[in-house]
Amino acid sequence: MEKEIINILETDTVNLSEDGERLVIIDQSVLPGTVKLVELRDRREIIDAIKRLRVRGAPAIGVAAGIAVYLSALDALNVAGNDRKGFMEELRKAAGELVLARPTAVNLKWAVDRMMDLAEGLVDSTPEEIVSRLRVEALTIKNEDIEVCRKLGENGLPLLKRGQGILTHCNAGHLATVRYGTATAPIYLGQERGYGFHVYADETRPLLQGARLTSTELQLAGVDVTLICDNMAASVMKEGKVQTVITGCDRVAANGDSANKIGTLGVAILAKHYGIPLYIAAPTSTIDMGTATGEDIVIEQRDGTDITDMWYSEPMALREVRTYNPAFDVTDHELIAGIITEYGVAYPPYDVSLRDIMEKKKMEQRKEVRDE
Amino acid sequence: MEKEIINILETDTVNLSEDGERLVIIDQSVLPGTVKLVELRDRREIIDAIKRLRVRGAPAIGVAAGIAVYLSALDALNVAGNDRKGFMEELRKAAGELVLARPTAVNLKWAVDRMMDLAEGLVDSTPEEIVSRLRVEALTIKNEDIEVCRKLGENGLPLLKRGQGILTHCNAGHLATVRYGTATAPIYLGQERGYGFHVYADETRPLLQGARLTSTELQLAGVDVTLICDNMAASVMKEGKVQTVITGCDRVAANGDSANKIGTLGVAILAKHYGIPLYIAAPTSTIDMGTATGEDIVIEQRDGTDITDMWYSEPMALREVRTYNPAFDVTDHELIAGIITEYGVAYPPYDVSLRDIMEKKKMEQRKEVRDE
Repeated sequence: MEKEIINILETDTVNLSEDGERLVIIDQSVLPGTVKLVELRDRREIIDAIKRLRVRGAPAIGVAAGIAVYLSALDALNVAGNDRKGFMEELRKAAGELVLARPTAVNLKWAVDRMMDLAEGLVDSTPEEIVSRLRVEALTIKNEDIEVCRKLGENGLPLLKRGQGILTHCNAGHLATVRYGTATAPIYLGQERGYGFHVYADETRPLLQGARLTSTELQLAGVDVTLICDNMAASVMKEGKVQTVITGCDRVAANGDSANKIGTLGVAILAKHYGIPLYIAAPTSTIDMGTATGEDIVIEQRDGTDITDMWYSEPMALREVRTYNPAFDVTDHELIAGIITEYGVAYPPYDVSLRDIMEKKKMEQRKEVRDE
Repeated sequence: MEKEIINILETDTVNLSEDGERLVIIDQSVLPGTVKLVELRDRREIIDAIKRLRVRGAPAIGVAAGIAVYLSALDALNVAGNDRKGFMEELRKAAGELVLARPTAVNLKWAVDRMMDLAEGLVDSTPEEIVSRLRVEALTIKNEDIEVCRKLGENGLPLLKRGQGILTHCNAGHLATVRYGTATAPIYLGQERGYGFHVYADETRPLLQGARLTSTELQLAGVDVTLICDNMAASVMKEGKVQTVITGCDRVAANGDSANKIGTLGVAILAKHYGIPLYIAAPTSTIDMGTATGEDIVIEQRDGTDITDMWYSEPMALREVRTYNPAFDVTDHELIAGIITEYGVAYPPYDVSLRDIMEKKKMEQRKEVRDE
């Protein structure tokens, strides 16, 4: 099935079909030329879609993986019937294959492990009962993701003023999650409430997530968005067009240093120069209290053809020219005005405030367990 | 004629053929895929080459225009013979066509005017004598350009240390001039003298002059060069890979504010953040004492398809997404450590030092006239 999308904000990036038998995704590999939903029937199709970046973004991959384990359990039930041992063997095999689809995607393994821990724990349940519980758990993972993003929006929106210019880098948007995104969550919430933001989206070389994804989803959601090359950010700031910068992040260290897509550090330095606050939208799942500072974060280096070979005619540099192509950079905590989480906004000094946030998370999770 | 180039630094970007009958250029429209010389026979071919950016860069265009006026005089001589009136009519017509080849190129008009002022002043000369004087004048314009660049190199080199990392933005190189370039002149001079620089070239979105031109010419000249995306400049600075930034400029205001290719301002702010000096290489022809500050410089806005439509597959953003595409930005004088000219390096306060430089230029030019 392929379906044109009418309203991107009302369309979950990753979802379970109504009949509970298919994973439905917004196909991100054909953006921005085509905006369509595709249905994936089994883990083979899902693994292929993850590999081909039809589904991408850490949270979205996690949710897709959860649903993939449930769909694999359905298949295992078809193969093994009510033979619990045979069923679990099939399911474990499927889980093992899923984890290998994209080995660097932490959320993928996290979601598969969570689903499998549940299944393994249900020692007295029939395969049919396990399938039913896995379906609920997959949808819970999905709803938790929506809830985290919604709270990031609620916590971030008070930092913004009506009619403001907001600059963002890369894609920490609706398309990287199920709904709302992380950095974009306050923008979408403000949009719903008539804040009238003007958003500047860095194109984000080399892979152009800002052009292909961020400007696309904001435009399709009716947000006033302007696409710029990364090296134009200083100009729009100097001209007074930007009052706040919000970006996502890949990992936050205990001292607040934040790794994110290459270019974020530069944006942060420009923002500081012009006295513009920069906020990092960080679900607590990306806060790593075990990493002391940004210096402990290893930066992935990618192939230089990202830089030289994306052009219509021919390579844009001599074949023998050396390139340097770090995928991420680390923004020093001194450059960050606040870190927006689903448990509130952390302010400097981050070694204290992030500990408080993680403590609050632990307390609320304990409370939820008690309430159950 | 087409000829592969062996050593780019020993090849003038723009030249008169040995027989004095053709303009010889490095064809910049096919870089970096092909590095070749082409010969242009008459002003029709030259105008076409200027329009198609086979020859580009303000100084190179000026020199090409000077040679084009001389070649047009040769043609006029063939048409009109020793009829001075008919010869001058032909020549004026040619000059008028040449000026229109690229109306925004100040150097083009400057060179054509200089050549025509000479011709018009030779009221007692025969067409043959005028042609001969125009040939000398065209080569003088060319040699002056080489001399200015050589002096920029001599004046800039003492600012650099052996083994340094140097970052540059856009192309203010050999390919924009006849030889050496402006920002690259100290680099090439240092290269000749075994300084062992490591150069980082920003790709310079949207038109990629850094990738297509700067990394190409440095690589072909044997300089150790690494190509990066613009948004990686902060990372290479943070990692201690860059000790100096040098860029060219399009116009320097009387207070030192300098307009240059979009992205230069951002690089300057990053350099200041990391305590790295940024120097602007500025032939005095680009210093405009009639422009008080950078605020008086109007920034050219270009079409957004530069941003969205350079990719191999399809547009990289939705057709309806707005873009903002300024061609230049203005780097505030506070961010500039020094302005390198052919008459020495200007340091802050620039309102004083630039006046001194322009005064020195006037004195030396008067002295040259006296010495003649």
